[in-house]
Amino acid sequence: MAAESFSVKKIPSGVTAPAGFEAAGIHAGLKEGDDVKDMALIYTREPAVCAGTFTKNVVKAAPVLWDQAVVQAETDVRAVVINSGGANACTGAKGYKNCEEEPRLAAELFGCTPEEIFVCSTGVIGQQLDMPVIKKGIRLLAEKKARREDFASDAAQAILTTDTHKKECAVTCLVGGKTITVGGMAKGSGMIHPNMGTMLAFVTTDAAVDRTLLRRLVREEVEETFNMISVDGDTSTNDTCLVLANGMAENVLLEEDSEDLPVFRGALHEVLLFLAKSIAGDGEGCTRLFEVCCQGAPTKACAKTISKSVVCSNLTKAAVFGRDANWGRILCAMGYSGADFDPDKVDIILSSDKGSLAIVKDGVAADYSEETATEILSGQPVRALLHLHAGEEEATAWGCDLTYDYITINAEYRS
Amino acid sequence: MAAESFSVKKIPSGVTAPAGFEAAGIHAGLKEGDDVKDMALIYTREPAVCAGTFTKNVVKAAPVLWDQAVVQAETDVRAVVINSGGANACTGAKGYKNCEEEPRLAAELFGCTPEEIFVCSTGVIGQQLDMPVIKKGIRLLAEKKARREDFASDAAQAILTTDTHKKECAVTCLVGGKTITVGGMAKGSGMIHPNMGTMLAFVTTDAAVDRTLLRRLVREEVEETFNMISVDGDTSTNDTCLVLANGMAENVLLEEDSEDLPVFRGALHEVLLFLAKSIAGDGEGCTRLFEVCCQGAPTKACAKTISKSVVCSNLTKAAVFGRDANWGRILCAMGYSGADFDPDKVDIILSSDKGSLAIVKDGVAADYSEETATEILSGQPVRALLHLHAGEEEATAWGCDLTYDYITINAEYRS
Repeated sequence: MAAESFSVKKIPSGVTAPAGFEAAGIHAGLKEGDDVKDMALIYTREPAVCAGTFTKNVVKAAPVLWDQAVVQAETDVRAVVINSGGANACTGAKGYKNCEEEPRLAAELFGCTPEEIFVCSTGVIGQQLDMPVIKKGIRLLAEKKARREDFASDAAQAILTTDTHKKECAVTCLVGGKTITVGGMAKGSGMIHPNMGTMLAFVTTDAAVDRTLLRRLVREEVEETFNMISVDGDTSTNDTCLVLANGMAENVLLEEDSEDLPVFRGALHEVLLFLAKSIAGDGEGCTRLFEVCCQGAPTKACAKTISKSVVCSNLTKAAVFGRDANWGRILCAMGYSGADFDPDKVDIILSSDKGSLAIVKDGVAADYSEETATEILSGQPVRALLHLHAGEEEATAWGCDLTYDYITINAEYRS
Repeated sequence: MAAESFSVKKIPSGVTAPAGFEAAGIHAGLKEGDDVKDMALIYTREPAVCAGTFTKNVVKAAPVLWDQAVVQAETDVRAVVINSGGANACTGAKGYKNCEEEPRLAAELFGCTPEEIFVCSTGVIGQQLDMPVIKKGIRLLAEKKARREDFASDAAQAILTTDTHKKECAVTCLVGGKTITVGGMAKGSGMIHPNMGTMLAFVTTDAAVDRTLLRRLVREEVEETFNMISVDGDTSTNDTCLVLANGMAENVLLEEDSEDLPVFRGALHEVLLFLAKSIAGDGEGCTRLFEVCCQGAPTKACAKTISKSVVCSNLTKAAVFGRDANWGRILCAMGYSGADFDPDKVDIILSSDKGSLAIVKDGVAADYSEETATEILSGQPVRALLHLHAGEEEATAWGCDLTYDYITINAEYRS
């Protein structure tokens, strides 16, 4: 979706850009180092309708189970409490009991019910959370929030694990004559192959939106953004994407037939896409974002299957790292994707900020220079355009290269 | 299948162990270095019935298309001509025309028809074969064959690409009072995630076997062996497993109701399993074979799906390399496999030649020592036993760890 055509404007800031949202990020003590933030809060002064998508992994972390119940209850929400330094996944009954204590304490401090509070955790799987530290953290977050200062950036920092930088953004647009704002933050670097939201992503907006409509939009847009990225093919136990809309922009409620719906959808898309691409481009150990666009497909599903298969291929990713235009691996990954297509009709074009080059024409090598190909592959981001010449549908997937540092990070993550 | 109970005996040697089979391996000039063998031949003095399984990749190499036609013709065969140094995949009409020239020349030299000759290629995808060199190679192979010496080992060497060692084996057993022998050789190290045979595998036997029966046995045994290994999740364009049976052991023809059928099947299983495990254990850059056995599953399909998902997880494989008992990643990979199971009932036991250790009980961490876990994970091979406590079915998958050397090999493979 070309968001520009709807006058969606990017602005600095993140989840606190929309009216009525507050955030905080603090060091509770889950991670070592006094200045290392490990807990975050997002709070809305007015109750917000919400939508959420979650991991499809059969093994779901305790907070995912809690949050799913909150979304299903269809009541408004007030806050999200997030910790890094522990995923609270594979922690059994004790883990779920610990998880329940968090909204209970937060609800006391914020004067609402526990069912109005989301909880998210990220970090190592299988360890119990240190509850005294978590509780201390929630109290610290409440104190920070009371200051009414802008700590969005601290919050975005506090949710990171192996990420190399924080991921936040915000956009504004006009809806029914009112300026509405959508902000977001996310984390994710390894175990990234979302099958619902990705690791953790939080989107806030002051738009007034019908709850059912918001859920449909989020479900559909997550399909095109978070569900199209992959770092390592591993779908996490904690994938969560939450969207909170508090209506404080005072626009006329957005409903299915609202004229400005495409504008809001465009703004939502921009934020989700920015966060998804930020995660893919900050994949563990990666040096470059890898974007694969499949065009000329007979169906959208075919285009998605093929672009995701290529972006997930270890061999292709290692070749991108090595600046090696080993297009046979791309065609191979298209071939085992499960999608049906005619290999003899495929064209492949590689591009980056260093230029573009047709390397495959009708399924065989085009007459290209390896030197130019290497030059292009040393650019950023690396794009592969795959044309099937079999229809009008297209899809894009995002990933990254596979490097020595991915091994370093993951052979030694817990030590 | 416990082959031992049928008195299947391992013997040294490979594809020439069965009566009437000859082999050769020579340097034709496809690879650099005068002593680097790059073409191989398997020849049977009597016509052999054959069975073959091939890649399910939509993108199929020219020799795969040729060989599929040979198998489908249901006629007997005489030889297999194999080259490394070029996959003849994604080479279009010219590539197929080149491929056809190989059996034509071989048939002239061996006094048979081209349709009795299999052709296999492995190496870089997308480059045309150097046909003068290939033809010279076929002539050299024919000359070697005429010497009637045992060059099985040369043949096993000639088919390798990034493999670090050759893979061959042979077994004998008694069938109807006759000694029959099954031999085999294979290659494969990267782009290993077979979906039919793996890269290239060749099995010879002097057993007299009904053609239809042989095909069923091969199809079923390949499912349990080659189709249960993975190095990098990339299914090749050239995967081929060929089995030739020339009947020279003079046993009574093995048919569906033969009493000794389990013995022959056991021998076939032994050879296929040895070759499959050799490929997994020689995965590109790997330091250790990784064996994952899922037990207590409600169905065989469930056990297979789960064991393959774990053996394919980049995060788990990097943890094996790092000797890190990060079992959360194992449970996570089980969870996103697509199979349905109750995470709260899962037990996980890690083992190797250094001992064994229960690390997960009922879905949560068992009370184990990280030091002992690291010690076990430094052994060889590393085994993970996953018990679902939900039935009687089980399946085993084989893979390897993910290391710095995998990146080195694949970032620079063509240069």
